Amino acid sequence: MKLVLLGAGRIGQVHAANIARHPQAELAAVVDVNQQAAQALASKYKTRVVKHAQAAIADPDVAGVLVCSSTDTHVEMIELAADQGKPVFCEKPIDLDLAKVDSCLTKVKQADIPLVIGFNRRFDPHFKALKESLVGNNIGRLEVLKITSRDPEPPPPAYAKVSGGIYRDMTIHDLDMARYLLDEEPVEIFATGSCLVDPEIGQAGDLDTVMLILKTASGKLCQIDNSRRAVYGYDQRIEAFGEKGMLLAGNPTPTTLQCFGQAAVSCDKPHFFFLERYRAAYRAELDHFIEVVAGIAEPLVSGNDGRMALWLADAATRSHQAGRPISLEADHESS
Amino acid sequence: MKLVLLGAGRIGQVHAANIARHPQAELAAVVDVNQQAAQALASKYKTRVVKHAQAAIADPDVAGVLVCSSTDTHVEMIELAADQGKPVFCEKPIDLDLAKVDSCLTKVKQADIPLVIGFNRRFDPHFKALKESLVGNNIGRLEVLKITSRDPEPPPPAYAKVSGGIYRDMTIHDLDMARYLLDEEPVEIFATGSCLVDPEIGQAGDLDTVMLILKTASGKLCQIDNSRRAVYGYDQRIEAFGEKGMLLAGNPTPTTLQCFGQAAVSCDKPHFFFLERYRAAYRAELDHFIEVVAGIAEPLVSGNDGRMALWLADAATRSHQAGRPISLEADHESS
Amino acid sequence: MKLVLLGAGRIGQVHAANIARHPQAELAAVVDVNQQAAQALASKYKTRVVKHAQAAIADPDVAGVLVCSSTDTHVEMIELAADQGKPVFCEKPIDLDLAKVDSCLTKVKQADIPLVIGFNRRFDPHFKALKESLVGNNIGRLEVLKITSRDPEPPPPAYAKVSGGIYRDMTIHDLDMARYLLDEEPVEIFATGSCLVDPEIGQAGDLDTVMLILKTASGKLCQIDNSRRAVYGYDQRIEAFGEKGMLLAGNPTPTTLQCFGQAAVSCDKPHFFFLERYRAAYRAELDHFIEVVAGIAEPLVSGNDGRMALWLADAATRSHQAGRPISLEADHESS
Amino acid sequence: MKLVLLGAGRIGQVHAANIARHPQAELAAVVDVNQQAAQALASKYKTRVVKHAQAAIADPDVAGVLVCSSTDTHVEMIELAADQGKPVFCEKPIDLDLAKVDSCLTKVKQADIPLVIGFNRRFDPHFKALKESLVGNNIGRLEVLKITSRDPEPPPPAYAKVSGGIYRDMTIHDLDMARYLLDEEPVEIFATGSCLVDPEIGQAGDLDTVMLILKTASGKLCQIDNSRRAVYGYDQRIEAFGEKGMLLAGNPTPTTLQCFGQAAVSCDKPHFFFLERYRAAYRAELDHFIEVVAGIAEPLVSGNDGRMALWLADAATRSHQAGRPISLEADHESS
Repeated sequence: MKLVLLGAGRIGQVHAANIARHPQAELAAVVDVNQQAAQALASKYKTRVVKHAQAAIADPDVAGVLVCSSTDTHVEMIELAADQGKPVFCEKPIDLDLAKVDSCLTKVKQADIPLVIGFNRRFDPHFKALKESLVGNNIGRLEVLKITSRDPEPPPPAYAKVSGGIYRDMTIHDLDMARYLLDEEPVEIFATGSCLVDPEIGQAGDLDTVMLILKTASGKLCQIDNSRRAVYGYDQRIEAFGEKGMLLAGNPTPTTLQCFGQAAVSCDKPHFFFLERYRAAYRAELDHFIEVVAGIAEPLVSGNDGRMALWLADAATRSHQAGRPISLEADHESS
Repeated sequence: MKLVLLGAGRIGQVHAANIARHPQAELAAVVDVNQQAAQALASKYKTRVVKHAQAAIADPDVAGVLVCSSTDTHVEMIELAADQGKPVFCEKPIDLDLAKVDSCLTKVKQADIPLVIGFNRRFDPHFKALKESLVGNNIGRLEVLKITSRDPEPPPPAYAKVSGGIYRDMTIHDLDMARYLLDEEPVEIFATGSCLVDPEIGQAGDLDTVMLILKTASGKLCQIDNSRRAVYGYDQRIEAFGEKGMLLAGNPTPTTLQCFGQAAVSCDKPHFFFLERYRAAYRAELDHFIEVVAGIAEPLVSGNDGRMALWLADAATRSHQAGRPISLEADHESS
Repeated sequence: MKLVLLGAGRIGQVHAANIARHPQAELAAVVDVNQQAAQALASKYKTRVVKHAQAAIADPDVAGVLVCSSTDTHVEMIELAADQGKPVFCEKPIDLDLAKVDSCLTKVKQADIPLVIGFNRRFDPHFKALKESLVGNNIGRLEVLKITSRDPEPPPPAYAKVSGGIYRDMTIHDLDMARYLLDEEPVEIFATGSCLVDPEIGQAGDLDTVMLILKTASGKLCQIDNSRRAVYGYDQRIEAFGEKGMLLAGNPTPTTLQCFGQAAVSCDKPHFFFLERYRAAYRAELDHFIEVVAGIAEPLVSGNDGRMALWLADAATRSHQAGRPISLEADHESS
Repeated sequence: MKLVLLGAGRIGQVHAANIARHPQAELAAVVDVNQQAAQALASKYKTRVVKHAQAAIADPDVAGVLVCSSTDTHVEMIELAADQGKPVFCEKPIDLDLAKVDSCLTKVKQADIPLVIGFNRRFDPHFKALKESLVGNNIGRLEVLKITSRDPEPPPPAYAKVSGGIYRDMTIHDLDMARYLLDEEPVEIFATGSCLVDPEIGQAGDLDTVMLILKTASGKLCQIDNSRRAVYGYDQRIEAFGEKGMLLAGNPTPTTLQCFGQAAVSCDKPHFFFLERYRAAYRAELDHFIEVVAGIAEPLVSGNDGRMALWLADAATRSHQAGRPISLEADHESS
């Protein structure tokens, strides 16, 4: 199965490596506006560079497309693939503009192609085990969900301009996990935050430390907190509390080594960042996309999932600006 | 040092036992409207029952008073002690009515007696170690505080009537911990909740599952979540996140035993409830009160701390009712 | 119930405090060759000093005797109590000479007094939970037992002269635990060791680091290892492995605090030494002795248990000297 | 770099998969007396089957040979590779007969080919981190080493006939780790064991539960224990104790999920067996062999390491039979 990779950056490289190690898949071509990056990746995996995405996608041997280019090009790339009837995997977010997302998803629907959105955490073995335990009714009805997500270090302040802000850039992952695990849409969202890590982030109009509460129609409560800087590494934890117990999915560590010394007992910090933490998730995500392309699986993370997470991130942004909770039911009906 | 115990209920019994094991202290008398309970406790610790609190307190040999009677009598008892110039330990809350609390604290101030409020968690070795680590600057400036507090089983629904509701009855402990650890007053509070555990609690006008966000002037964020029912026991955890790291204080367990079986690896649940979990805290709390009575320590939890926690619980209640955050700065100035 | 305490040293002080906090018990008198120590302890617990043990024991109000004096006086003190028909609690070991122990136990038997030996670990909640889990058949038939026991710091080298050597002084505790948990007598013992911590210990003819293997008739294997110096504190762990799983009892820690920093995640070390680690065990041990004196319990650690542990320690010493395993069956029949 | 794989069994399949995912390596041919197994593996990785090992090795394009055939063929295969001057990776053990091993290693030396022995644990990230911490002097001088190694389920009793017995088949891995971590040769070994898991193993003349003590010239003590059946999975732990602290390398688990339920708190068991537990180790091991073939690394596990582990396993077997420790110094000089 031949796949085209659009985007040779950090995340594109992860997918290229996973395609290389997959027994059924083959990297047919790499496309990137940065020709040097495209060439380096193509050389490493013994494939070719194609200058224009359209040409690469149109190749009749190509069975699927991975969109790992910059966010502002996602919609264009998805639509090129839709035009050719090719299944698409697209990194989050589809776009930062909900109207553009809706229009894109309409085209995807018309083209009737499968679209998988790259919410990698759904494929993480630890969170997947938590989800399966929920589904298996180990803690009965879910009542409280708590999601902690912290990056090791903040992005450059300039990034705030193109990222859409922390809610659309970072919290969006947690909003997707919230929807996935709550198994019920939120009806209210309250978001608040501060700029505590880097004043320049604040000057650029963004936040670096945020906290949210979501509520569902049946009364389930969900808490999310994010920070752009955790000196101990990438902190990704989920707590699910219900009528029959509690599930905790914590941070895996590089090794199990413990050192008992005169001052304290110490052990490994969490992994440094997402490439290490979600290594297995990226593999499973690609395996899943290959099954989707092969027609033996339905997308586990749909275009609508991508849309809903953005819609919640938009609502969080508005809640923060308004300084009060936003009712999502009204929103939902109108959208 | 002779102490009078007002109230022979569950918590009064804890303090009686701790007085008995303290080398300097002696239980001079027990007072309770329930004469049978008073008599049973007095017999166990070889002391006498006095019918009226005033008489017991007035005994010139009595150096201090412990108020463990029902909440609606706290103010009266504190004022009786103030009249006699005797130091007082009072279980939380001082009262459910802020105006009564203020009036009582004025009398305490006029009488110039020391007053210690029984926020037991401040004396817990685990949370104390966390506080000391914060003070010791181990994680630099605090940015995010998360407090989880869950009871093993809900009180009878009728309790909602006299408790003042979950925010004033249960969350008040966490609000005190928030103030204690944030080391800065909150300027905004948002509270929301559900009735998920027992519908009768809802019918009685109360909640059993709540979630709050507090924010300070400098931008620190604090999250609290409570549930009235955790089947795995009393769940009391605090997470403090800052510029140089994170502190976690978890649930101690009865034993360290782990069992590796065919199905899973299992270990002890947390302690069942507060009497077991806070055993050491109750001892340290009484030791502290005895030092206060002896004049060698200032109250670590003042009447004002008791007032402020109630004031925050009131604000949480109003936030919940209004469905929006409450600005505390305005409130604070007016109060 | 009035109890006499023979020995006002470190461990005598522990028992005195536990007697003071026990509702049924009272410290009737303290005896110690060090009059100053005796007086200090007596003042603290408001009791009297008696010069001669015999007089203290003979007091008709005295219901039981705690022998906490130096090892070389244990037998004499037990026999004084036996003469007066008073129940005895005796710190380990009964004596370092097996013949003296046997003769003493004969007198105890003739006097028909209950004798409890102070193997404190049998009363530790963690190890007790492990024992109960074994008895409850949670791991089926026990096959492998591993006992780790390390002191925080070595005794003065001169101590080697009076202690009987590390096997009789330190390993004896683990040998008792081995018998207790194996629930079957060992038939073979192999002991080896080194002097790695302090060369003066070696010069005094003793070891500071030892390792043993015991085997029972049914083929169960037991490993013990000791060190006189663990810089991270008192290390007391037991692993029990069987046909249906494994049990681990680890080191409790002062607090649950974890600190996630830039360098590592750190948590509390184990407690410093036995007074902290076995605080609960000492209480339970005294509670048990009081029940034995009251006639409502049989000794959980008998004189024979004390004898058998010494006998194994002797065999370990001989194994080490001979450089080969010692068959205990032959020994056992002859003794 | 073209590699030949001799042996298409379980472990051969692991190496084939790792060759397939390595960017520099290519599987040139598969050889197995079981033609069907060879064919299946060859098809999966799109390579060819060669009937005779000699022909496969002699192919001038082949740069290295992996010996994963049955133990009794290892020496012959290594010598075929030596004849052709090809670097060899050989699964442990080289052979069960020390004389054959010595003769083989002489030929390897004469041929001057690099030989890497497949002691996979040296490549495990957890144990490697422990080794690096030792080398980094984190716990000062090593004094006590404890190695636990338990399989999830016993092999068929008939396996005892060809395996050389548990010490040569299973303990040999731990003996290699002991040498690796002690960084000093043992001078004494004592081994004892039982048949507790499956009586048929005993009838076949083997043991299923063993315990060993090794001692070095400087007095370091090492304990090893093995069981053929741990119902909770593959149990592989190492404890290193020294003058400045202790290191523990534990069992990694599939996920970090914890479930707090009414009965207990439960978490994942260790991985089922070596294929899962040592997945990363097998990759690192192959990466290392490829570097050796490329001439940019010296073998980390030499032929002599393979020989020494067998020699210790032989000594363990003799110790068990003799019922006493074996002095290795004499042995060593004579061999």
